[in-house]
Amino acid sequence: MTQPTLTRSWVASANGHTDFPLQNLPLGVFSINGSAPRAGVAIGDSILDLHAAIDAFSGEARRAVEATAGGQLNALFELGCGPRVALRERLLELLAEGSHLQTREAQVLHSAADCQMHVPARINDYTDFYVGIEHAQNVGKLFRPDNPLLPNYKYVPIGYHGRASTIRASGTDVRRPKGQTLPAGQTEPTFGPCARLDYELELGIWIGQGNAMGDSIAIGDAADHIAGFCLLNDWSARDIQAWEYQPLGPFLSKSFITTISPWVVTAEALEPFRTAQPARPEGDPQPLSYLLDKRDQAAGALDIELEVLLTTAAMREQKLPAFRLALSNSLHMYWTVAQLVAHHSVNGCQLQAGDLFGSGTLSGPQAGQFGSLLEMTEGGKKAVELPSGEVRKFLEDGDEIILRARCSREGFASIGFGECRGTVVAAR
Amino acid sequence: MTQPTLTRSWVASANGHTDFPLQNLPLGVFSINGSAPRAGVAIGDSILDLHAAIDAFSGEARRAVEATAGGQLNALFELGCGPRVALRERLLELLAEGSHLQTREAQVLHSAADCQMHVPARINDYTDFYVGIEHAQNVGKLFRPDNPLLPNYKYVPIGYHGRASTIRASGTDVRRPKGQTLPAGQTEPTFGPCARLDYELELGIWIGQGNAMGDSIAIGDAADHIAGFCLLNDWSARDIQAWEYQPLGPFLSKSFITTISPWVVTAEALEPFRTAQPARPEGDPQPLSYLLDKRDQAAGALDIELEVLLTTAAMREQKLPAFRLALSNSLHMYWTVAQLVAHHSVNGCQLQAGDLFGSGTLSGPQAGQFGSLLEMTEGGKKAVELPSGEVRKFLEDGDEIILRARCSREGFASIGFGECRGTVVAAR
Repeated sequence: MTQPTLTRSWVASANGHTDFPLQNLPLGVFSINGSAPRAGVAIGDSILDLHAAIDAFSGEARRAVEATAGGQLNALFELGCGPRVALRERLLELLAEGSHLQTREAQVLHSAADCQMHVPARINDYTDFYVGIEHAQNVGKLFRPDNPLLPNYKYVPIGYHGRASTIRASGTDVRRPKGQTLPAGQTEPTFGPCARLDYELELGIWIGQGNAMGDSIAIGDAADHIAGFCLLNDWSARDIQAWEYQPLGPFLSKSFITTISPWVVTAEALEPFRTAQPARPEGDPQPLSYLLDKRDQAAGALDIELEVLLTTAAMREQKLPAFRLALSNSLHMYWTVAQLVAHHSVNGCQLQAGDLFGSGTLSGPQAGQFGSLLEMTEGGKKAVELPSGEVRKFLEDGDEIILRARCSREGFASIGFGECRGTVVAAR
Repeated sequence: MTQPTLTRSWVASANGHTDFPLQNLPLGVFSINGSAPRAGVAIGDSILDLHAAIDAFSGEARRAVEATAGGQLNALFELGCGPRVALRERLLELLAEGSHLQTREAQVLHSAADCQMHVPARINDYTDFYVGIEHAQNVGKLFRPDNPLLPNYKYVPIGYHGRASTIRASGTDVRRPKGQTLPAGQTEPTFGPCARLDYELELGIWIGQGNAMGDSIAIGDAADHIAGFCLLNDWSARDIQAWEYQPLGPFLSKSFITTISPWVVTAEALEPFRTAQPARPEGDPQPLSYLLDKRDQAAGALDIELEVLLTTAAMREQKLPAFRLALSNSLHMYWTVAQLVAHHSVNGCQLQAGDLFGSGTLSGPQAGQFGSLLEMTEGGKKAVELPSGEVRKFLEDGDEIILRARCSREGFASIGFGECRGTVVAAR
């Protein structure tokens, strides 16, 4: 276990209830008042400016800091685990109580409230998987009640290429997209603003070291190729999707925006929250050999509690708290992230540092655990009632969706991901 | 018409039968003996080194050359039509008979045979469309003989996101991919090398100026957003594709490699070969208004003859010429490139300079016009007989596929695209 559970930080806000205690230390890219973006580490309510503190690092940890000089984390991701782990270890010393760095607080620490967060790396390619099995079953049931999962689901980690250019950091407005939709009972489409706008609760996975085209990453080697994790909202225009997606999959129904939480929670920080893959139900096939690794089976799953909250314009006006739409967990992934990496590259596809994967929607099987309105409303049939007296089948302009994630385990400091927010604004 | 049809070049090889007469002037990125990649223009058998000749350019043309300083064409594409047209006009002077540039031939001109060509721009996102209607019908017939086209086909320019990281320039070997396939009659997949490897004949479209996220590009404004064209081979593993593609589309069956011809044939060079969109068959719907533009209907289609050739290892040993598998034409696109741009951005999706579109396979309706083996062999049922006595249902190791394209029109110099080649090598 890499978590120094008892150590406290000289940054006071890191010692209370926070997503970012000393045991987390997620990496990100921030700017202040329009300055050039630079790399930082979240600690309590503050951000440590890595370059302002660069002389406190040496060796591999210094190499890690230097790799972020361009204001993006790609080069650091490309270095693999070694320098990232060294950076973490040195940060644990520097931010722990008693560190000399405290004397330089004014130079190296910023209040997070004063900073703007950015997408932390140049995303070359974005792949969205579909490995939340409960979501696949919930959605499959809407179309095929007797046979919700397709025959390949339990063999193939299903995924598709997504649009990289419209991935944005938490807080970016979500412009309601326009597009073609087929009105119920009609045979000809109409064009206009999406009327069935939805969110999807996903885990994002940042790729570390890449592979050369033609090579594959063995499942046992996947760790060096996974840099960290974030939250991801795969906004979806359900009416556009229903009309466009045959035969080649979702396209404009997703590509208008994807929102991510900006902090990269490292594999090291998540180490205490790894667990065995949930046992496959009786009768499920064994993974094919390229997807099978003992260590991965024993500790490749992630136990991260995931939450979706909503506020509407009326709720904010009435000062009502955000309403929880769902509480779920990343254990609903049918495949581990190592399996995703092994599968994606098994055909020789080149992964590159800074590629982003989405897990697919991570719903649970029951009411209160659904990661999309499509599931909560059974395809728009049942309205969700809100504390403001409003109802929702799909999102209205002014609605804000907030994703949160938290890892807890007895004897360990609880860590969080920070938020992934987006507010729907009217179509142009 | 922007083609100065009668002008000859002082580069002698540009005046004979060549893909690259003075009237073409495609842009590319080349290196010599491992030098840093730099921008050039193809002229006959030679390449003009734009930076070696930079003092011959001024004004907008100079701005265009300067934008290529990084050895990639993205910044030039981002400038839109103006500087690109100015560059072309100046090149027409500089490379015409009588130009003073001839005195500097040794400094500014390289033999193309000595140069290595590169992917000319950083490709942020790659989108593969499916607008070759004859291909869609030929493939649809294999699965749904009575109803080959899905209901959305004549309304929606169908497309999906492809993998950008594995796009390579002509000449790169094609490693046979491995993956999951479902053997006929079985219910459980096996893992191994693809046994049904195929090519797809496509036109590639380079995106010029981008748009901000949330904005759309009106169809009438598409011209500034299209920088040029290339050939594209969308290599496809049919057995992997059949097993993986439901419900989210092709993924590993395509992402192992996509090959492009390295020269960017500009919109200006293709101007004489624009024509009216072929009349939609009786009963086909009108495009929705965001896809409808009078000028585009009148002159938005491209008349480019497209060719697929094959050589096998045995054929090369026997010194047999390449065997023509297909002769087709880009007029089989059901949608124009302006319609693709308007559709892709209508939901606010951000396009960026250097994005690449594929047209989808451009087959004709008849034997001899099919742009894939899937169509030629009716899904692997009918073997293709080769001059060497060999037969093919799908590609074997050692097979080389060569794509070519040519535009011809009476009274105009004929121009070509250069080749898009790839040789299949054994799986690892």
